[in-house]
Order: sequence, then C-alpha cells, then structure tokens
Amino acid sequence: MYKTIKEILQNPTLGSEITVKGWIRTKRSNGKISFVEINDGSNIKGIQAVINEEDPNFQEIELKKFTTGASISLTGILILSPAKGQTHEIKTTSFNIIGEVNQETYPLQKKRHTFEFLREIPHLRIRTNTFGAVFRVRNQISYKIHEYFQKNGFIYINTPIITSNDGEGAGEIFRVSTLDLDSISREKKVNFKDDFFGKEAFLAVTGQLHGEAYAMALSKIYTFGPTFRAENSNTTRHASEFWMVEPEVAFFTLEDNIKLAENFLKYILSNVLNDCSQDMEFFENFIEKGVIKKIEDVINSKFEVITYTQAIKILENTDKSFEINPCWGMDLQTEHERYLTEEVFQKPTIVIDYPKEFKAFYMKMNEDNKTVKGMDILVPRIGEIIGGSEREDNLDKLNKRIKELNLDVKTLNWYLDLRRFGSTPHAGFGLGLERLIQYVTGMANIRDVIPFPRTPSNLYF
Amino acid sequence: MYKTIKEILQNPTLGSEITVKGWIRTKRSNGKISFVEINDGSNIKGIQAVINEEDPNFQEIELKKFTTGASISLTGILILSPAKGQTHEIKTTSFNIIGEVNQETYPLQKKRHTFEFLREIPHLRIRTNTFGAVFRVRNQISYKIHEYFQKNGFIYINTPIITSNDGEGAGEIFRVSTLDLDSISREKKVNFKDDFFGKEAFLAVTGQLHGEAYAMALSKIYTFGPTFRAENSNTTRHASEFWMVEPEVAFFTLEDNIKLAENFLKYILSNVLNDCSQDMEFFENFIEKGVIKKIEDVINSKFEVITYTQAIKILENTDKSFEINPCWGMDLQTEHERYLTEEVFQKPTIVIDYPKEFKAFYMKMNEDNKTVKGMDILVPRIGEIIGGSEREDNLDKLNKRIKELNLDVKTLNWYLDLRRFGSTPHAGFGLGLERLIQYVTGMANIRDVIPFPRTPSNLYF
Repeated sequence: MYKTIKEILQNPTLGSEITVKGWIRTKRSNGKISFVEINDGSNIKGIQAVINEEDPNFQEIELKKFTTGASISLTGILILSPAKGQTHEIKTTSFNIIGEVNQETYPLQKKRHTFEFLREIPHLRIRTNTFGAVFRVRNQISYKIHEYFQKNGFIYINTPIITSNDGEGAGEIFRVSTLDLDSISREKKVNFKDDFFGKEAFLAVTGQLHGEAYAMALSKIYTFGPTFRAENSNTTRHASEFWMVEPEVAFFTLEDNIKLAENFLKYILSNVLNDCSQDMEFFENFIEKGVIKKIEDVINSKFEVITYTQAIKILENTDKSFEINPCWGMDLQTEHERYLTEEVFQKPTIVIDYPKEFKAFYMKMNEDNKTVKGMDILVPRIGEIIGGSEREDNLDKLNKRIKELNLDVKTLNWYLDLRRFGSTPHAGFGLGLERLIQYVTGMANIRDVIPFPRTPSNLYF
Repeated sequence: MYKTIKEILQNPTLGSEITVKGWIRTKRSNGKISFVEINDGSNIKGIQAVINEEDPNFQEIELKKFTTGASISLTGILILSPAKGQTHEIKTTSFNIIGEVNQETYPLQKKRHTFEFLREIPHLRIRTNTFGAVFRVRNQISYKIHEYFQKNGFIYINTPIITSNDGEGAGEIFRVSTLDLDSISREKKVNFKDDFFGKEAFLAVTGQLHGEAYAMALSKIYTFGPTFRAENSNTTRHASEFWMVEPEVAFFTLEDNIKLAENFLKYILSNVLNDCSQDMEFFENFIEKGVIKKIEDVINSKFEVITYTQAIKILENTDKSFEINPCWGMDLQTEHERYLTEEVFQKPTIVIDYPKEFKAFYMKMNEDNKTVKGMDILVPRIGEIIGGSEREDNLDKLNKRIKELNLDVKTLNWYLDLRRFGSTPHAGFGLGLERLIQYVTGMANIRDVIPFPRTPSNLYF
C-alpha cells in the first residue's frame, strides 16, 4: 500500500525519495518556484511540494493544471522545511496530474463556504478542512468505543434494524415495506400479510430490548449501530438517522451503571484529545474557543450524582428565571439541565430516580412506587448526552406496568420471557454518537457530523 | 465491575475467595455433594462449583432451586480441580439463586434442540453452547475488521441506511415511508412529496457509492454496517438484513485491491484462530470436522488469480459435468465457482476481468471494451466471499455506460461529480460479514449467525 501523508510525517526519512498521492489545496508561484500544498485526508495538514518551474522536465502546460481540487501523484526528496508552520517539504523531481478540475464549475473554491451551502454538497464537503477534521474525530471516537468495550469483556451484538416492535412510545417510526403503494387495495384496509415479512415492519428506534436478551446469556454486551426517528423536528440536535451505542450488563444495578458510564465517557474523551490533537487544535481555533479545556475538565472531574427530586428543589429555590417553571412531576427541559450542569455544579451531572410518568415502561420501579431507577448524564453546553436505567427484572411488576400503560403485551411476550427464565438485575444506557461528536468538536449542528444527514424533507442521494 | 468467568480463569488466584454470577447449566448430586456448572457466556466452558449439601448453611429448599437456566450469584474458594476437563473449580461458601426457572415451561431443557426449533426463540437460543460460540466469534471477527483497517490508516465512515438511490440494479429494495397506508389517496398515484423526506426513500443495498465520495477526500476509508435486500429467496446464504464491510481506496488499481483483500482476509482468519481457540475447537468437534485445517490452509496459501476467460476455458475443458454448462458470456454458477476453488486450485481463487454484461455499471472497462476490472474471491465450500472492482474513473466512459444501461443519470449526477473534480483511479470490495462467519464456524445456515435474522415472511420481534 502507498504511504499516506500522515504515515510519511510520522516516520520521516530525510533525503529519501517519496511519492505522495492526493489533491491540490493551494498553489503559490513567483514564476520561478511554485509551492503546492497536497492533502490526502489522512491529516489536517498536508505536505508542501516545491517545484522549480525552470526545470526542463516540468512543462508549462502541465503546470497550468495545478488548480485547487486536482488530483496528483508527486515524487521528490523529503527535506526539512525552512518555512514556518511545517517540519518537512518535498523537493519535487516528477509529478503527474491525474484528474483535473474545471475551476469554473467546481463548487469548492478556495474561499470560505457556509455550512449551509456545504450541506447541499455532502459528497464534496468532506474535501474541506472542517469536515476532514470532523470525520477523522468521528472515526477515532467510533473505534475507541469498540476498544473500550472489547478491553472490558463486552461482546458486540448487531441488534436488528428492521423490527416488528413499534418502539413502545420512543417516538415516531418509519415503516419498511415492499408493497407497491400505487396498487395496494383501494377497497379495504391494507393487509400486511401480503407485505414482505407477512406483518408490519419498522426501523428500530433502539437495540436495547434485543440487547437485553443477549445480556441475559452473555452477561456484558453492547450494540453500536444506526437507529431511526421519524419525528418531524428540525433542530440542531435531531436527525432521522443516527448511530447509538447501547451497553447492557447482567447483574448490574443503577450504581454499577453510573460507574460504567462515567468511566466509559472519560476513556473516549481522553483518547480523542491524545489521538486527534491536530484536529482538536483546529476545532479550538476555528469552531469553539475553549473546547479542549472543556473536555479536560470533564476528564478530571468526579461526576455529580443527584436525584430528580433534589434537582427540582434546586431549580425551585434559585433566583434564576426559566421559560418553563420547574415543578415535581414534569420532565426537565434543556434550560434546566444546562443550569444544573453549567451553573450549579459546573461539571457533568447525573440525575437519577425520575418520576415513572415520563420514563419508559422497562425502568425498574423504586420502593416509593413513584420514581424509577433511570439516569440521565448532563454535560455543560449540551445537556443530556447519556440516558439509561436499571431495568425492571421482576415479572409481576413489569407486567403491571405494561398494563398500566396499555402497551401491547402480546408483542412483548418474548421480552417478558427474560424475566420468566433466570431473571437477573441488569442495567444499561444509550449514548448518541453524533451528540458526543458535537460535544467534542464544538460543531453546532448535528447535520455537520454525519456524512449524509437525514432530516425531515432532506435526503441527499 | 464484577469479574467474568473468562477473566477469573485467565488469571486464577488459587485459594482466594471469588464470586461468580451466571446461569446454571447442569447439576449433578449424590445427595451429599452437588456439582453445579455455572456459565456466564464469557467462555464456552463455565466453571464448576462444588456444594456440600450437608453444610448447615445450605438449606434444602434453596438447593431445589438449582435448575437449568436459573440465575445465581455464588461465592467460594477457587481451587485446582481433581476432575477431568477443567483446571479449576469453586468450593462453595455461599450462594443466592436470583432468578428461578419453571422447568415445565422453559423451552430450553438440557436435551438437544434442532436449529430450526431454536430459530423460533431467537431471544433464548443465545443461551446454548452453539450460539454462544457463534456470537463470540462474530464479535471477534467484527472487532478485528475494525482493528485491521484502523492499523492500516483507513477511516471508518457511516454511509447512510436510508437513501434515495434505488440501488442501480443490485436487487430488490425496501421502501422507507411514514405515509399512512390506509389513508393514502385512492384516486391517483402516490405523491411522495407528502412522504417524510419529500421524495421516495429506500434501505441501502450498499454503501459503496457514498463511500467513494469519502475516499475521494480521505483516501482510505471503509464502511461497516447493515445493508438490505428485499429478494424473495429462501436459501441458507441469503438474508434480508446483513452486515457488510466495504473498503474503498483512492489511487488503487485492481492489483492493489487484490493484495488488500488477500491480506485482510488472512489477518481476520489468523486472529480468530488465535483468539477464539476454545470456540473453534467446539466448531471442529460438533459443527464441521476439519474447519480449523480449512482455515489454516487459506492462511498459508497464496491465492490463485485467473481471468474469467481462463476460468471458462478450464470449465469447458473438464470432464466434470455441471447442471448448467459454462460458456463465455454467462455468469459463473456456484457449482462452477466451487469446482474451480475446491478441485482445480484447492485454495482461494480470485477471478478477474468479467464480461461487462453481468457486472455493475461502475466497474472500470478494460481496453478490450468487453470485460471490466471486477474481482470475485472464491473459497472452498462456500464459493464467492468477496466481490470488488476497480471503479470507472473516466467521466466520459462512465456516462456512456450509464446511458447504455438506461440508468437514471439525474440521480447519479452527484456520483459523476467525483469524476468531474479531481478524479483518481480507485478500487474497493465488499465482504458479507455473515458469509465469513458461516465460513469460519461451519454453520450451514445464515439464519444461525445473525442474532435476529430477517428473511421473507420471517420477522421475530
């Protein structure tokens, strides 16, 4: 395999002949000497090639093809660079422009573009510094998520994307079907026996329930895959398709779950600061001033743990005014979450023991019969980043809750089996990958941390 | 975090008090001493606990709850085992049956079950030895796939699951929609402007095209995610939802691609033999005699590379009779592929340069204008395991091919941009994760290597 610029710069062999393959970012020339920056996406910084235009090997007509975006293979000698801001450069001996670019029609000129404009060309925006950095960080976080769980004995499970489970109130869902919509019966209701699976099918909103089945045999598992919401909400934090990590552990209580989540989050954050230092420097300089210290503070803090009831008391007793006044029994709003984590505790804050009314049916009931063993991790500037709970492991209590909420017990019978046969306490949580990337990079809009984002009325390619 | 049985046995501390948490597999008793095997899914082998039933701490009523499938927390002293087949056992000092099992209604008794029966209880079959081993191997392969690409400087990209691209002939596809099928217009054709994305949306059959856009900026990328086929085929090798790995590399030719695929495959196979030795021993003994040697042979062989034209000549000149007679211009059947790899070369065989007629529009045309730079890797016993190609990087040739095949050039215009602006040679391949797991474990049916398999008319939970 040819060496990437990152690999060349990690182990530079001065004086040796090297070949780089990439795309031209900039070219400066004084008519005699050209300075060309080549980037191949492996690094935020490319490498500079110096071309002596008077060298008889270099024909003028070829030199004219050196425009932004053109692909090139270039060979030369690696030398120390006298210029500022770079350690090495290439003294060019030969080159070959592979793919040219018509500068009139190329949408990515050197000038700056708005993120809004770039969202309309998701297949090209990855060629910019910002998006290169975002997707290198996304790669690193994704890999470290796997590494963390593998090191700790978790088994990776691919829970199904197509499911007959309608999400049990986790939000609006997408239907999956092969029915020809133009020719379905105009007379009567649709009969899903005729559909591909012989029944209604949807895109999964979570892998948790299926993951629990696997945790009840393999003990420590995690899922990491795409999940879907058909909510018609246009915010900077919601996408219709996003990736979620969901560990689930048998014999775990809420307290174990809290420790796991804190330890996990710190591992990912420490690694991204170490492994993506150049990209993080870019975000510090151009996207969010202070982002590195923000992350360091999280790594070095002991997360605060408070109950929902304590949180409400704090919110009721402050002089701060909120758009929505908090009172016991209502869900916390983002403004409340941010106040708690940013102003009161000034560090990540874990709120536990929420009223059962606005939490999912599967959360373990506390002895007060009013609150459940749920947990939300709130972080400064973004609010909730992790949501989890200990699960109800008692068959009778779970059955009772399903009836109270009028859920379809027939479609949940398999899930109840997990409480019928060798039930154990167990707990887990979900982390939205994109929100974590937003938090780490400072990117304000979730559309800018997903390669091809999907939102209401928006589907590019 | 509590220690799993695997962790305990990896670093056994003789004479120390340990606690294991898991599920009872078997219990043997002579009325005075009981031998209980506990498994927590971390290992194919559990750990045996010895219980002195005459110990006054152990009440008879509790001992009766020791049935297959019950969950237990058990504490005792780790000692060397005098029994065969195990190195250590636990001298029990206390225990707690956490979740009981009604043996009358529990579908998993000690006796053997058919895979067909177990497919109807996908939430419970993971509690058997076979499925524990399959999903530990699946975990290991998945992680090593990431590790291989990360070590080699590839960047992981999540290509979209929901796409407006209809797959360009890669097979039948699923529609994704939020339209209420019972209330869509009975008068006229469906207007997809009213649908969630304002246009038709489908589940992706491949991430390749989107991956190419990212390779044209980051150079070396890979995707690893779920893909979908709505084909109505009930075979042991087809599922409607499966996971695929798709690397894509800028500046790569077909030859580079072949080297990458061979190197990659050998890395994964070597690692699974090393890291999952106990599970592989299980497959050797109970699923496919000779499976370990089969894999070792692949690791130690230099893959054969032949052109399609050479392959057809070999097939035409053999005395062997086929159900379908091979001739130039037709696609190779599985019987042909298996003959080539099992009988002629007796090792993995890469067939390249296929007739353009039955390969995808994006494959790079050879100079003969008849064949394309495609490659299929065939392995003994299974046939095709990897399919890939060098991509057509010439705008005019790609345009011509799109027109010849009557594809919708409008929906592919973004893809053509990749050839308009800084085009480069590039290549990649796709590996179906489940087929690789089938190959490694010897499991005959793809339904038994996916946690919750989806096939026509089959959708459990």
